[in-house]
Amino acid sequence: MDVIRSSLWKSLHSYQVYGANTNVGKTIISTAICKSLRRKFPDEKIWYLKPVSTGPLAEADDCHVGKFVRGINTDCLFQFDEPVSPHIAAQQSSGNVPSDSELLQSIYSKISQYADCAPGWALVETAGGVHSPGPSGTSQVDLYRPLRLPTILVGDPNLGGISSSISAFESLHVRGYDTSMILLFSNHKYKNHEYLVDYFSKRNVTVLSIPAPPELQPDGGDFQRMSEYYDILSESDPMEHALSLLKANHKSRTENLESMASRASSVLWYPFSQHLSISPATITTIDSAYGDHFQTLNTSREDTRRPLLNPTFDGSASWWTQGLGHGNPELSLAAAYAAGRYGHVMFAGTVHEQALTLAETLLANMPNSRLSRVFYSDNGSTGIEVAVKMALRASVVRNRWDASIKDLEVIGLKGSYHGDTIGAMDCSEPSVYNKKVGWYTGRGYWFEYPTVKMVNSNWIVEVPEALKRELGPGSQYRSISEIFNLSGRQSEPLANRYRTYIQKIIKKLVQEDKRRFGALILEPVVLGAGGMIVVDPLFQKLLVEVVRESRDVFESGRLDTRDDWTGLPVIFDEVFTGLYRLGRFSSGSFIGVEPDISVHAKLLTGGVVPLCATLASESIFESFISPDKSDALLHGHSYTAHAIGCTVAQASITSMLAMERDHSWDDFKTQWQDSRGPEIWSVWSREFIEKLSNDPAVAGVIGLGSVLAITLKDSAGSGYTSTISQDLQSRLAQGNGREWNIHSRVLGNVIYLMSSLTSTSQNIRMIEEFVDSALHSKV
Amino acid sequence: MDVIRSSLWKSLHSYQVYGANTNVGKTIISTAICKSLRRKFPDEKIWYLKPVSTGPLAEADDCHVGKFVRGINTDCLFQFDEPVSPHIAAQQSSGNVPSDSELLQSIYSKISQYADCAPGWALVETAGGVHSPGPSGTSQVDLYRPLRLPTILVGDPNLGGISSSISAFESLHVRGYDTSMILLFSNHKYKNHEYLVDYFSKRNVTVLSIPAPPELQPDGGDFQRMSEYYDILSESDPMEHALSLLKANHKSRTENLESMASRASSVLWYPFSQHLSISPATITTIDSAYGDHFQTLNTSREDTRRPLLNPTFDGSASWWTQGLGHGNPELSLAAAYAAGRYGHVMFAGTVHEQALTLAETLLANMPNSRLSRVFYSDNGSTGIEVAVKMALRASVVRNRWDASIKDLEVIGLKGSYHGDTIGAMDCSEPSVYNKKVGWYTGRGYWFEYPTVKMVNSNWIVEVPEALKRELGPGSQYRSISEIFNLSGRQSEPLANRYRTYIQKIIKKLVQEDKRRFGALILEPVVLGAGGMIVVDPLFQKLLVEVVRESRDVFESGRLDTRDDWTGLPVIFDEVFTGLYRLGRFSSGSFIGVEPDISVHAKLLTGGVVPLCATLASESIFESFISPDKSDALLHGHSYTAHAIGCTVAQASITSMLAMERDHSWDDFKTQWQDSRGPEIWSVWSREFIEKLSNDPAVAGVIGLGSVLAITLKDSAGSGYTSTISQDLQSRLAQGNGREWNIHSRVLGNVIYLMSSLTSTSQNIRMIEEFVDSALHSKV
Repeated sequence: MDVIRSSLWKSLHSYQVYGANTNVGKTIISTAICKSLRRKFPDEKIWYLKPVSTGPLAEADDCHVGKFVRGINTDCLFQFDEPVSPHIAAQQSSGNVPSDSELLQSIYSKISQYADCAPGWALVETAGGVHSPGPSGTSQVDLYRPLRLPTILVGDPNLGGISSSISAFESLHVRGYDTSMILLFSNHKYKNHEYLVDYFSKRNVTVLSIPAPPELQPDGGDFQRMSEYYDILSESDPMEHALSLLKANHKSRTENLESMASRASSVLWYPFSQHLSISPATITTIDSAYGDHFQTLNTSREDTRRPLLNPTFDGSASWWTQGLGHGNPELSLAAAYAAGRYGHVMFAGTVHEQALTLAETLLANMPNSRLSRVFYSDNGSTGIEVAVKMALRASVVRNRWDASIKDLEVIGLKGSYHGDTIGAMDCSEPSVYNKKVGWYTGRGYWFEYPTVKMVNSNWIVEVPEALKRELGPGSQYRSISEIFNLSGRQSEPLANRYRTYIQKIIKKLVQEDKRRFGALILEPVVLGAGGMIVVDPLFQKLLVEVVRESRDVFESGRLDTRDDWTGLPVIFDEVFTGLYRLGRFSSGSFIGVEPDISVHAKLLTGGVVPLCATLASESIFESFISPDKSDALLHGHSYTAHAIGCTVAQASITSMLAMERDHSWDDFKTQWQDSRGPEIWSVWSREFIEKLSNDPAVAGVIGLGSVLAITLKDSAGSGYTSTISQDLQSRLAQGNGREWNIHSRVLGNVIYLMSSLTSTSQNIRMIEEFVDSALHSKV
Repeated sequence: MDVIRSSLWKSLHSYQVYGANTNVGKTIISTAICKSLRRKFPDEKIWYLKPVSTGPLAEADDCHVGKFVRGINTDCLFQFDEPVSPHIAAQQSSGNVPSDSELLQSIYSKISQYADCAPGWALVETAGGVHSPGPSGTSQVDLYRPLRLPTILVGDPNLGGISSSISAFESLHVRGYDTSMILLFSNHKYKNHEYLVDYFSKRNVTVLSIPAPPELQPDGGDFQRMSEYYDILSESDPMEHALSLLKANHKSRTENLESMASRASSVLWYPFSQHLSISPATITTIDSAYGDHFQTLNTSREDTRRPLLNPTFDGSASWWTQGLGHGNPELSLAAAYAAGRYGHVMFAGTVHEQALTLAETLLANMPNSRLSRVFYSDNGSTGIEVAVKMALRASVVRNRWDASIKDLEVIGLKGSYHGDTIGAMDCSEPSVYNKKVGWYTGRGYWFEYPTVKMVNSNWIVEVPEALKRELGPGSQYRSISEIFNLSGRQSEPLANRYRTYIQKIIKKLVQEDKRRFGALILEPVVLGAGGMIVVDPLFQKLLVEVVRESRDVFESGRLDTRDDWTGLPVIFDEVFTGLYRLGRFSSGSFIGVEPDISVHAKLLTGGVVPLCATLASESIFESFISPDKSDALLHGHSYTAHAIGCTVAQASITSMLAMERDHSWDDFKTQWQDSRGPEIWSVWSREFIEKLSNDPAVAGVIGLGSVLAITLKDSAGSGYTSTISQDLQSRLAQGNGREWNIHSRVLGNVIYLMSSLTSTSQNIRMIEEFVDSALHSKV
């Protein structure tokens, strides 16, 4: 997807005319609108644009409009002589066939020229019905969606036209188009207009019927008859009504957009936000989104001829959820299908196909032979609570501890973050996120660990100062793949030092400090909210292995000889890192060990609705089996396994698996190919990462899957309260003269960007170029 | 919505033929299918059914089919002579015009007769396009949805037919239809079939093209030509392919349904369920849902001529979420619109129209002048965590306590339940739900309280044994309205006793026991998970008032003189009780006090997707304003304020407000009219409630809004582990000879039922009759 701006100018009323079918009078109605506009707004400019026309030039729609309405401008961008659908005409044509992106750019640039000469009106007339293919074969309703022009739907007055009109409306609607009105010819035999007026009035869409044009006659007087028809029509009540609606709709859309930030600042309470620094001026108003981009309201709007909307790269992938592009019609249809088939189905003791299929798909594709059960909840945080409840209970049962013990803890990593509900918070060490939360109680021990990054063209494993005595100074590697070559690295001296260190700590915790642990919980490879920290995967692997080998440490008296899991149940929090965020289905596979429980959310539903799946081994599951109901996992949310979430997730996973199978990411992968270890790749280019790593402002950089994280040097210290990266963030947000800008999120002195799985390399390269230049420009 | 069964028999292959438009050859293709079937399956019966036909009898579609295919049965249910759309023909007709429900019943009963004579095949041919109106005016695609017959879509081969075919498919899809295949005539000029084959293969729908019929000629040889055409066609490859697909689809659908329970029992981990008592036999397989009913797989399937699906009344309103009917097309379209317009938009510092509009709508309609801010999260449990974080912080700031204090508690009611995440659990007293949750820590004091119910025709306020010394024996009232007449009851002696009692307890807690409190949290009127207990609203009102009057008790040294809130911040958990579940927009309005924070979920999204809104006063909000980022409410989920949830919620609330405004519930309200107090009403009839209250098996009963709760006498004790109500539950599940049954949920010795807001009184009366008889029958 290229960078395309949705089309909106304050001083230009622009509408797209779609037809409920072919031959329903789109051009006649467009002509009538133009003529009425010409009459009613004599001082404004009027443009009629036919992006793609097929058939003889003399009969083209723009010629028809031009012939009957004087004093307006008509344009046609691409003309094919054959009177067939544009995709067939294009195949047969020897001339220039525009790609979707060229076509969109041409339309945008035309409308943009119109806006420069505004105030005025622009009508863009499509060809055939809403789903008729454009020149490339893409259906128009998808092809033109990025512009998201408000729509005038020309209804079908013919027999069967009630159906085609409603279905056409629905095809527009499910793609997020706003239909401003439906216009159709009255037909007193079929009375479609009567039915449709009533049908759509219940749905807040105005339907207006206008007299049908005179029938063509062989006497040569057709021009005269049509002229009279247009003359009368252009002054008729329905056309007056139509014009005032079009005017009012445009006004209310722009006024609404312009008032939203201020209204938002008075009624919304934002997540993770200090409202002292929020004002209408800091709130980004989002009109819609498509592909990689939000369409955001331009903040400098003095010049009414400037476009109101800016494409803004969604550089946080909408808080790490987005993978298949905003406004993805397949996910939209999947959501609607589930809503239409089920609504919601309560999920205690019932099964519906969507929840079952998703569970089976997840289990089949997880490279983990332990996992056999799927428990659904609503988001990553609740899924972690479920995972922790599972693990703690399994430990209690294994060790025959009293079910009511309250002092169980987890082992984790410093800087880890697992969610915002109290139970999920309790899995993390005290930090700025939780320190003022009344009921937060850090319940665990959190290891320090070595990290991975590129610095000055070198891939390094960096050992934190505090651990250097134990672990040595860290190491340097020839590639990131070499760092992830864990079997190769088992023989490194570092591996032994890791092992010894971990063994020492856990013995001390349990045997000296008498602490009791019920789970090991890790975010595989990348700690997200902790600052996009890449942990040495060897350390994580050994941590799991040592814990599993330490039955004598963790299991009180080895009461149980089962070895389905040993030491502690291991939880992998893949909420952020899983499902291809780092380039693989499961991020746990980088570590080369199989957790007993893993948690999946965010990309699970491709950036559409919340859903979480907590996967567990049969052994963990069996800890809850008992004749006593109170031994069950008494957890569940009303919308557990809601059909929409499961259906969208299945569609989303199916897409991602297909993309991998179809080598969709090979362009990205090729540049990261490396024989020194397993396949590790990123959408961010090797050259770019290396260039950043040598930047004097950069302390380290990492690119993995769709994630780019840049740690900036901050003399004032790092951490969540650092502000150094906000300068870069604001330069990206301002666009620095570009036609687009970048929304990004920062975590202390780390700024990160994240693409979709569908982002094009062209788009990524443009972003890299912008980031590179923004690093060194000043606001 | 009446009780309609989806149509599915193992030995009957039944399909519905829809057209992408009128005049696309539905009847010709149906004839060809029938003819091929006749040839290929000589031993099976074949039925062709035209539910509604318009135009002269001799030209009717069923006659056409009968004329060209021998040895099959054709039927037409309703015939109108005028060759126009059925809704117009019906208006003009003097004969019997069926209602939607009659038409559906007729079709179902016809197919049912076919199934009795199976094995065989049934084709049901619709009229016009998918959205063409039926006799009542309801669009066919909605009208026939309850049957959810798998669909053969006849594509449109004409100019513009690509568009009409795809749009028709989408209109079916968003209503949860399964389109088994698309068949269309090939047309070598427009090549729609080529395009559609490719388009739909990417969407896993098979498109088959077949030769177009010969053109009609004036020479009288049409019958002969058509016969030859059908002869050739019926043996052609595409028809062979079509038939094997239809056979395979039916087989895979039924096999899938029959295997689901067993697969589910091996991969799913159910919420709130002890798996020891779950087996394939106990799992209800749900094919789809519509209106008030699930379509559940029949458990006794030995007789292949029995219908496979049973309508099952969704008596828990899908865990209290359902309000506007399952499979509601308006909500489905709302969800798809938001997905198409936005996907998801990350919500820190941005605003989109859906979140803003919903926030404004909630604030405008809450009868509470305090509330001014909306914080979104993903479900009731997370919304409660947000509420508690808000309240505790407000108390900390007001009292200038250290931000890190850990001993803050809440005041609540015994038996309250606020959700399953640890923080929400901590708001409730120890119980069976939380006692084995490792990290649960009850942090509060929970009052006992008097309850409301009807016993032996009397409305009583019952005082629990332990409180009788303090509060006296309770009281009897002439109506439930009288109990809710709180201003009238302020002068009762009971009011004074409540007040004195509450004052005494809180003084003791704070002044003697030195406990510190940060919030009062209540479920207004009904404690849901606690057992559908109706609390005396006067007690709740006085609890809030006394807390608010007790600044000297709760506020350390009155450091602050602000009186925006006093004593403790008051949280109303309306997750279950709000948004018309009890008959009013806000359940807090029954209590007559305004909370500082209120939490809304479940019905918020009309039973479609999870979403929660926590509303707060400006004063609570201001407690988080500071130059220090760490003072902010650092809470947020990735999908916070997801566009789909907000859009569906807005649609859902708009519908509910319109139903109230349009007096949609007046039939129910009338029977509860009472001059002794405010409007209190229920969908459950006064007579039924009174009858139950006199039943020897019933200890008490309550009907409020859509909720019916029956407390059964259990000599073995009450509470969550009681099994007495399971007997009744299983009788309702078995249907006892009815064509439908009831899914219900029990809470210990309480069985409850809950309707939608769209349930018809007819349906409710049928359920009442069943419940009444089931109470006294034996399994």
